[in-house]
Amino acid sequence: MQRIKITIMYDGSNYSGWQIQNNAITIQEEVELACSRLFSQEIKVIGASRTDAGVHAYGQVAVFDVLTSIHINRIPYGLNAYLPKDIVVCKAEEVNNDFHPRYDAKLKIYEYRILNTQFNIPQNRNISYFYSVKMDIQAMLQACKYFVGEHDFKSFCAAKSSVKSTIRTIYECTIIKESHFLVFKICGNGFLYNMVRIIIGTLIQVGIGKLKPEEISSIIEAKDRKYAGETAPAKGLTLLSIKY
Amino acid sequence: MQRIKITIMYDGSNYSGWQIQNNAITIQEEVELACSRLFSQEIKVIGASRTDAGVHAYGQVAVFDVLTSIHINRIPYGLNAYLPKDIVVCKAEEVNNDFHPRYDAKLKIYEYRILNTQFNIPQNRNISYFYSVKMDIQAMLQACKYFVGEHDFKSFCAAKSSVKSTIRTIYECTIIKESHFLVFKICGNGFLYNMVRIIIGTLIQVGIGKLKPEEISSIIEAKDRKYAGETAPAKGLTLLSIKY
Repeated sequence: MQRIKITIMYDGSNYSGWQIQNNAITIQEEVELACSRLFSQEIKVIGASRTDAGVHAYGQVAVFDVLTSIHINRIPYGLNAYLPKDIVVCKAEEVNNDFHPRYDAKLKIYEYRILNTQFNIPQNRNISYFYSVKMDIQAMLQACKYFVGEHDFKSFCAAKSSVKSTIRTIYECTIIKESHFLVFKICGNGFLYNMVRIIIGTLIQVGIGKLKPEEISSIIEAKDRKYAGETAPAKGLTLLSIKY
Repeated sequence: MQRIKITIMYDGSNYSGWQIQNNAITIQEEVELACSRLFSQEIKVIGASRTDAGVHAYGQVAVFDVLTSIHINRIPYGLNAYLPKDIVVCKAEEVNNDFHPRYDAKLKIYEYRILNTQFNIPQNRNISYFYSVKMDIQAMLQACKYFVGEHDFKSFCAAKSSVKSTIRTIYECTIIKESHFLVFKICGNGFLYNMVRIIIGTLIQVGIGKLKPEEISSIIEAKDRKYAGETAPAKGLTLLSIKY
């Protein structure tokens, strides 16, 4: 058996997230179906990140084990022939049999897009969060700095999560303006459930003047979800890439 | 009666173009429905440009006549409340009663987006044309120059069109690279049926080396549709703006 690592892009708008569940269509299910059809055998796929319903990916990673004569470079084309148009495999590589996409991940990079205009732009309605209130980007950039470093991010973890440790390291947290969009980029060694979306929701509070940048410090220290901002909508979030 | 000019953005993916037709959903129909509901009377709308099925707009213009007490600045919000999410009115202005969006247009600006990568990016699949063959942008830029100026564009007009004059003036024809996209911008005093898409299809022929830039001259002179390239797909095209 060979372990194959694939890189996947998707528009998550029409899916109930990555992970297989009953009575809902998920990306993992579509990828397993495509693999099973291409290789004419039942294939189970392990994903790196359990993206939520509506979240997109540009570099989701998954692995599966298979014995096949299909050349590794042809696997993306083969899988894409069986995948719906909103899921595209853009890379396939052979990896060691003990490679695990989740446990071996060293760095994850997420992007969050806010469309900050008076009216929503229909062409972008599913891949950005439309928020029309004017925001103070300088204040938000100030606030970004407080997230960088190793912290206990319990305040930025969905209450229903039951993870062991809530300590994570953020290496980079930046905002750039791209025409009408505010594009947030967050890199870290791992993220808690809804962590990126709660960070964005909190940065929006700073942007509209409801929070001061320096208050981020005390919100982190509080280790209590109720002090952070709302969870920003899924549609603005994209898993950009994962480094190993 | 007041004549109201509105500016409309839309994702044309789910529509059979602008113009009302039987047995197909069109943008004009949706706008008329929203107007009729907002003003509680039957409203007819005249559009500036009859965009084709799948073509998008960022600045389509339309007018209608109405007697209303709704403040002009509130009209976009009122109409958007009745419009589907893929159509957004972003501006409303009072104009003279003899203003005509089509006959009075002085300049139209179109954008065409080609995604030039190995694999299609699902998030952009409806708003760009995915074309994976490598293209020579310098050659395409050379070719662009031949379109600028007043020419008889009969070679670049869909054969089924029955327009009187095929002479048009192009003021600008440029290409910029925006990450993985080639973004074409074409401004002119008016465009024949499918003209922008045939120009793009011809520029692609230059990009892949099937045509030399200087051959554009003889294709224009031929005044025969068969010498120009194929009509590029609608999904890459956006009507950016119209100047009066």
